[in-house]
Amino acid sequence: MAKPFMDEDFLLETPTARTLYHEYAAPQPILDYHCHLPPAEIAQNKQFKNITEIWLGGDHYKWRFMRSSGVTEDFLTGDQPDQEKFRRFCQVLPMGVGNPLYHWCHLELRRSFGIDTVISGETADALWEACNAKLKQPEMFARGLMQGANVRAVCTTDDPIDDLANHELIAADTTFKIKVLPAFRPDRSFNIDRAEFVDYIPKLAAAADIQILRFDDVRKALSARMDFFAQHGCRVSDHGVDVTFFAEASDAELDAILSRRLSGETLSAKEEDQYKTAVLLHLGREYAKRDWAMQLHLGALRNNNSRMFQRLGPDTGWDSITDSLVANNLSRYLDTLDRDDLLPRTILYCLDPAQNEVLGTMIGNFQNGQVIGKMQFGSGWWFNDQKDGMIRQMTALANLGNLGAFVGMLTDSRSFLSYARHDYFRRILCNLIGGWVENGEYPQDWAQLKQVVEAICYGNARRYFDLGTE
Amino acid sequence: MAKPFMDEDFLLETPTARTLYHEYAAPQPILDYHCHLPPAEIAQNKQFKNITEIWLGGDHYKWRFMRSSGVTEDFLTGDQPDQEKFRRFCQVLPMGVGNPLYHWCHLELRRSFGIDTVISGETADALWEACNAKLKQPEMFARGLMQGANVRAVCTTDDPIDDLANHELIAADTTFKIKVLPAFRPDRSFNIDRAEFVDYIPKLAAAADIQILRFDDVRKALSARMDFFAQHGCRVSDHGVDVTFFAEASDAELDAILSRRLSGETLSAKEEDQYKTAVLLHLGREYAKRDWAMQLHLGALRNNNSRMFQRLGPDTGWDSITDSLVANNLSRYLDTLDRDDLLPRTILYCLDPAQNEVLGTMIGNFQNGQVIGKMQFGSGWWFNDQKDGMIRQMTALANLGNLGAFVGMLTDSRSFLSYARHDYFRRILCNLIGGWVENGEYPQDWAQLKQVVEAICYGNARRYFDLGTE
Amino acid sequence: MAKPFMDEDFLLETPTARTLYHEYAAPQPILDYHCHLPPAEIAQNKQFKNITEIWLGGDHYKWRFMRSSGVTEDFLTGDQPDQEKFRRFCQVLPMGVGNPLYHWCHLELRRSFGIDTVISGETADALWEACNAKLKQPEMFARGLMQGANVRAVCTTDDPIDDLANHELIAADTTFKIKVLPAFRPDRSFNIDRAEFVDYIPKLAAAADIQILRFDDVRKALSARMDFFAQHGCRVSDHGVDVTFFAEASDAELDAILSRRLSGETLSAKEEDQYKTAVLLHLGREYAKRDWAMQLHLGALRNNNSRMFQRLGPDTGWDSITDSLVANNLSRYLDTLDRDDLLPRTILYCLDPAQNEVLGTMIGNFQNGQVIGKMQFGSGWWFNDQKDGMIRQMTALANLGNLGAFVGMLTDSRSFLSYARHDYFRRILCNLIGGWVENGEYPQDWAQLKQVVEAICYGNARRYFDLGTE
Repeated sequence: MAKPFMDEDFLLETPTARTLYHEYAAPQPILDYHCHLPPAEIAQNKQFKNITEIWLGGDHYKWRFMRSSGVTEDFLTGDQPDQEKFRRFCQVLPMGVGNPLYHWCHLELRRSFGIDTVISGETADALWEACNAKLKQPEMFARGLMQGANVRAVCTTDDPIDDLANHELIAADTTFKIKVLPAFRPDRSFNIDRAEFVDYIPKLAAAADIQILRFDDVRKALSARMDFFAQHGCRVSDHGVDVTFFAEASDAELDAILSRRLSGETLSAKEEDQYKTAVLLHLGREYAKRDWAMQLHLGALRNNNSRMFQRLGPDTGWDSITDSLVANNLSRYLDTLDRDDLLPRTILYCLDPAQNEVLGTMIGNFQNGQVIGKMQFGSGWWFNDQKDGMIRQMTALANLGNLGAFVGMLTDSRSFLSYARHDYFRRILCNLIGGWVENGEYPQDWAQLKQVVEAICYGNARRYFDLGTE
Repeated sequence: MAKPFMDEDFLLETPTARTLYHEYAAPQPILDYHCHLPPAEIAQNKQFKNITEIWLGGDHYKWRFMRSSGVTEDFLTGDQPDQEKFRRFCQVLPMGVGNPLYHWCHLELRRSFGIDTVISGETADALWEACNAKLKQPEMFARGLMQGANVRAVCTTDDPIDDLANHELIAADTTFKIKVLPAFRPDRSFNIDRAEFVDYIPKLAAAADIQILRFDDVRKALSARMDFFAQHGCRVSDHGVDVTFFAEASDAELDAILSRRLSGETLSAKEEDQYKTAVLLHLGREYAKRDWAMQLHLGALRNNNSRMFQRLGPDTGWDSITDSLVANNLSRYLDTLDRDDLLPRTILYCLDPAQNEVLGTMIGNFQNGQVIGKMQFGSGWWFNDQKDGMIRQMTALANLGNLGAFVGMLTDSRSFLSYARHDYFRRILCNLIGGWVENGEYPQDWAQLKQVVEAICYGNARRYFDLGTE
Repeated sequence: MAKPFMDEDFLLETPTARTLYHEYAAPQPILDYHCHLPPAEIAQNKQFKNITEIWLGGDHYKWRFMRSSGVTEDFLTGDQPDQEKFRRFCQVLPMGVGNPLYHWCHLELRRSFGIDTVISGETADALWEACNAKLKQPEMFARGLMQGANVRAVCTTDDPIDDLANHELIAADTTFKIKVLPAFRPDRSFNIDRAEFVDYIPKLAAAADIQILRFDDVRKALSARMDFFAQHGCRVSDHGVDVTFFAEASDAELDAILSRRLSGETLSAKEEDQYKTAVLLHLGREYAKRDWAMQLHLGALRNNNSRMFQRLGPDTGWDSITDSLVANNLSRYLDTLDRDDLLPRTILYCLDPAQNEVLGTMIGNFQNGQVIGKMQFGSGWWFNDQKDGMIRQMTALANLGNLGAFVGMLTDSRSFLSYARHDYFRRILCNLIGGWVENGEYPQDWAQLKQVVEAICYGNARRYFDLGTE
């Protein structure tokens, strides 16, 4: 007989999987070490006016799906009434058989709203009423959602020039126990090929109170901002490296490159790579000195649709996976840091799952035996943040690396409802390990299994990021 | 207890899968929107002289398999007696455990011949007799096979210079109800690097009645032929793009490139790319204006074996999968069309399944919310037209795109027996979706499931290609 | 109820799988056509002083895993006492859920030591005693381990300059029935980019007794050494081709390249490729003339960690998978040999499983119908030598090629205990085929299944390599 739709044993196909999940995984708190939650919304304890705002307000996953379903832009990013937008979404979601949105949405309804209605055109209006009524309750405000999900700490994603004022506000409020720490995301400082770079450097200089004339001034400014971030509890950095690069240069060359770029000249591809390499090398070394973790997100192809980029800007659903080669340059970058023993703890994420095995073995080149799982192959990212993607990432990691040392899941999300993805991940993890146990591939040693599962759900991240949580 | 070999529930592993297939999928008609059936054979209602002709006459899949099994060329493309060729095939097929040929052949025997014998050296002679007897009956002639498979429409693959005389003959025969429409396959007009190009351009000029001197004349000639094809009901185009390219050029540059090539000069790789890009951009825009669908088949490495190419020519089993990079150039091509809102409905097929996720996300960059599933990630192509390949393609599409909007299966075949592959596809589709339902990942809502399954089997293609079928 | 941990039906999930394994696969002898066993240790019938020596003495798989588990180098390659090293390994192995080491180690304990204890920190000391006691018995010496595993023949991996003295000693000992044959591994003769090349060429010249001044002298020297190897029963060659290349050159160019390199100059990337191409073309042709098999191992990225390479040298666990493109150059290389009908029987291995389909179809380009499975897609190599990797390799081969013609498993190992990997492979093979049979995808025809399974386990390799075993 078919399992009921998304009941409490969702994705748990064996008795061992069910025990692992319910006994060990589910009770673990959440340490969401990489997300895009707006700190201001936590500081203000944002209340959401309706389900459309919290579900469809800025979710490019849902927008992409709706566009593929024949829903026009006015019901997505346009000015149609919120209830109409929600109706359209409910009407088309049932096409998404096998799509993670289908699971995420129903998980969020079940876990955060306590509603187990199946989403469809017919249920849209009842859901609209029920969800909106729930959203009026404090446990559905920003902080309530975090508390309800048993979150211990989150790391937001912040530009080096950010004043971290909202982080200060949150930290100062002793009634709110969840740690909300900044993470250092200096992409704008190394993306010298972007138009905005020329305007950014003076802002970085101002934030750091350092005049930027030569390349070494960029180094100094970034280091100064790291110190500022460290004062606010930062322990983690993050970088979008769409295409890997590695090209060395002298400081004199870097000075010339920076100077020419700031005066409006166009650089060669090699010069761009030299500048980027030099910034990333400096960053890596400084992270190592501060014992921060470094995250590298590899392989996005962004803003493919010029028309819609003009109209809506970035991060509105026009990005995809690229297939550029990654191994050589990445190896040289990590090795260059390691030569001086200044390679920080590092998490590599790839957007192209065809590169899972490249990254799954790359991390083994730089494990040092001092930090457990110093080098990490990060959880299925973005388009891979779904059942198939997670299974592939964890299977590759288990086979090629060390699943027991894995720091596990993160939301990478802008939404306060996304903690359901930790639940999704834990079910998939427990089903994977449970399946191995049921198949005689690992002993049914509950003490050992408890240790492994709890570690991947929380303990490893707690130890690895060392954010001061229990 | 093991399931019987290929019974009526072949590949249907759960009760839900069986219901989905038998109730919803199996009764759907077939719209085979991309095949290589020779129109002349439909016009003449070809009768096959024996099972060797219809099975081994031009099937490079079977030839490759036989070569790998130690069958020498004289039993494939050589002059051994037909029965001997068939015997050899039957003798080696049992080595093909896990090979799609094993399933295709037995499905074709069961569905078209009504024979459920297992193929082997021992059964070869009995099969020879039984199949050949069947082939004498009108339902086993070309048209009978199409009718028996419940085909509503097929799109053949035709060169722009084709006179479509056979299509006219077929259309004129009001006793034959299946639509047989041409599809526009202009590869020879853009493959400027091939030796045959120089001879082809005058033929194109003659067919279009346009003198080709400058690049714009190529545009005009192609457009003229599109108009001619449109008069014959064409709604679909197709292109083999082995390696993606994107290089812009002015018309003056294109004039010079064309002129130099036609006078026998060799071009640089960049010039070839410029010419190809310009032709493909023109084609895409013209398809958009005519509301034709555009198919791009990416990633073949053709004619690898020089000795056998000399001896047997192309399409005789010496092709394989290439691993060239695809994302960047493809994105720029699609975006350039889209900027002027002249991107037609497009289906992307990749030969390298490692690129499934690249294409599965690429389509999302250009969905426009106006046509449901405007951009399609095409069904597992050629070497991927098998169980594992289909599961991977559909899993990727479901996770990254919108399976419910998928236009589904096509045969891509030269054989009138290949409609069994639609059956194969439908079983795999129903087993995939049925498995999700059984596992509680999608509701067992039969009305909704019926809608999704019927749409993928037929309804989406009917709407998308709009060939005038019911 | 969960299956017991690694019992006699380990990895055999269906009744058909169990029958295939126990009846047909398990009794087959082993022909280990590619390994790295040291011939000296066979000649001397090496006795191992303790479990640390035989398990941790040179096993980079285990070292990598321990490093990722937080075990420092002194317990791996350093001078900690052997028992302490073993304890650390036992303590961290349970983290390796889903890792092949977990299975390999327990399989080796069960099969070679007759011990079914689960490895952990708690059992470490008991295992230390029990294993060391066993290792004192002659059946646990080098030859005893080979005999106990039912090995018929092994091909070691030998440099062209090797004097094969140990092979002579082994061959001369008529009491030892297992064939121990050399395999020709001439990497140092074509890796012109390596520092050691300049020193190697004089050694090659000395071994061949041919003065090497011009490129053709390299050819002559290599051919002379092949003749010498042939006298010692060599039938197999092997090559590490980390990145594929193809660049043709005249002999005059090759002479200049060689001369400049030997005088210490640095070559361009193109010149290096020209030299390598020329050597590999010569090798391939000479293998074809001698009817040797040629193995190409593609896609390793070696010695990524400079610090540890300085300290420990190569093959100590700092290698990973690269993602360089392979199809084009490989096709041109194979085709160039084939044009003169001098393409030897060839086995292609890829380290990046994303390239499985590229290789799985590449072999089809050069099957000649004369040798069954002349072109082989080799078994999951190195990082892919695990359950998931094997399933992917065999699924790709079955779908794209001819699983029934597969020459099957090899250990590629330095350890006398690694024959357990043949057992691992056979279980996975039987489970895969058994699953297809149980699912109605292949007939439950035991005679046919016996033939296929026995052929893949042993018969195909016996025929293909023709080493003179029964």
